[in-house]
Amino acid sequence: MRLGILGLGLIGGSLGRDLSALGHHVCGVTTQESEAQTAISMGAAAEAGTDLALLSACEVVILCVPIPAILPMIECLTQILDPSTVLTDVGSVKASIVHDAEKLWPHFVGGHPMAGTTSRGMAAAQRHLFRGRPYVVTPTENTDHHALGVIIEMVKSLDATCITMDCDTHDRSVARISHLPVFVSAALLLNLGDDPDASKLASSGFFDTSRVGGGNPALGLAMAQGNQAKLVAELRSYRQHLEKLEQAVAESDWQTVSAALAWSNQRRTQLFPEKG
Amino acid sequence: MRLGILGLGLIGGSLGRDLSALGHHVCGVTTQESEAQTAISMGAAAEAGTDLALLSACEVVILCVPIPAILPMIECLTQILDPSTVLTDVGSVKASIVHDAEKLWPHFVGGHPMAGTTSRGMAAAQRHLFRGRPYVVTPTENTDHHALGVIIEMVKSLDATCITMDCDTHDRSVARISHLPVFVSAALLLNLGDDPDASKLASSGFFDTSRVGGGNPALGLAMAQGNQAKLVAELRSYRQHLEKLEQAVAESDWQTVSAALAWSNQRRTQLFPEKG
Repeated sequence: MRLGILGLGLIGGSLGRDLSALGHHVCGVTTQESEAQTAISMGAAAEAGTDLALLSACEVVILCVPIPAILPMIECLTQILDPSTVLTDVGSVKASIVHDAEKLWPHFVGGHPMAGTTSRGMAAAQRHLFRGRPYVVTPTENTDHHALGVIIEMVKSLDATCITMDCDTHDRSVARISHLPVFVSAALLLNLGDDPDASKLASSGFFDTSRVGGGNPALGLAMAQGNQAKLVAELRSYRQHLEKLEQAVAESDWQTVSAALAWSNQRRTQLFPEKG
Repeated sequence: MRLGILGLGLIGGSLGRDLSALGHHVCGVTTQESEAQTAISMGAAAEAGTDLALLSACEVVILCVPIPAILPMIECLTQILDPSTVLTDVGSVKASIVHDAEKLWPHFVGGHPMAGTTSRGMAAAQRHLFRGRPYVVTPTENTDHHALGVIIEMVKSLDATCITMDCDTHDRSVARISHLPVFVSAALLLNLGDDPDASKLASSGFFDTSRVGGGNPALGLAMAQGNQAKLVAELRSYRQHLEKLEQAVAESDWQTVSAALAWSNQRRTQLFPEKG
């Protein structure tokens, strides 16, 4: 299949490497010529460059650009692509993108691979980044059945776990499991401030809990802007849980503290049974 | 040197393996005979068993028992050890232990190696667990200088980064960098609850941010009990930082959100420059 990838960062590059290895002819487009050359040399694309016209004959095009760029790029592509082209994106918010995107392009299917690393950019692209990871596809009542089938097949070919959800359930779920942790984690760094003594003691626990909050600020901002109402709802309910814990500690209510920590311990073992 | 380790879990076992490899004669004491045999077979001790008398001729004894057991064990050891024995512990709270411990044992020096893994128990003990990690030593105005020197030498021999701090600074610092993250992380699991949709999407970000909150509940409880006032203070100030973020997101104050995330990103890079 002739497959286009617009945006050759970590996600676009990793998709390109896997899809090329599966035998597809991948055309990559990015804003920087050097990134295009890296993509070719890393086996992420057979052809790559900065000209959108490279995507014109592709059967499927995957938009791997930042969230705020997704809708503007679809508008540009309407001038270039064959009307039968199946279009998908990888944005971590869906309702605010998908409903407009499918008006612009009837063969659009929303997607969201739940994979990432601390590294960014084409040079960090990995084979098998999506293997065993959740990859959400968000059809609506308007979604074209053929287009949906094409995207689901592609997701399965990556050995990802394909999960179908409506946009609202997706956005609430990622607010809870992905966007909230970014802000909770950032607040740990803000609370640490410049404290030199505490900083000396930062070890593996703080390393792990501060990772997503200390990540790419533009991505965190785009999550908040694209999923604002649901993120605010999660921040509120999270704060209530934390306040209960604070109150229990302050009042020496060790039974409540103990029960909450035991529940958390069990819940995490359920969530990640194989990893410990 | 003849060196005793009381408590052969992850920390005691890992200390035993390194100190044995450095040529010390390590005597290990634990509550379970099978654990003692594992310690010997893993090279963590030359002799090991369940009888405290095994520690009687040691020049240094390291208490690697849970926080609530530290002071009671020192009381027991006063009947057994030679008065010149240097005693240290590895508890993650210090003020509530050290001041009483040095009354019971004049050659006591408080210690806290900032190292850990998700695995527990003697079988998880590792060589070089402390290498490059902070290892805090908390002398007071009463601390015996010879005893302090012995412990600092031992810490350095593990290739750990030896940091000297008073108990109060230590307790405030660990509340901020280590105990607070446990509760912040547990609250993420409590807020997730049993949500089946969000659970399907849990990936590396939630894995990392929920690790310490989903850890050993007894350890979390002991941290809260042993460092209550300082933990409550951190929970309060943390909550204020998070509320400001929540307010900024709710009011679409993207400049504030953006600045906070950019600051967090920079701060984390400063904290962990080599790891990314």
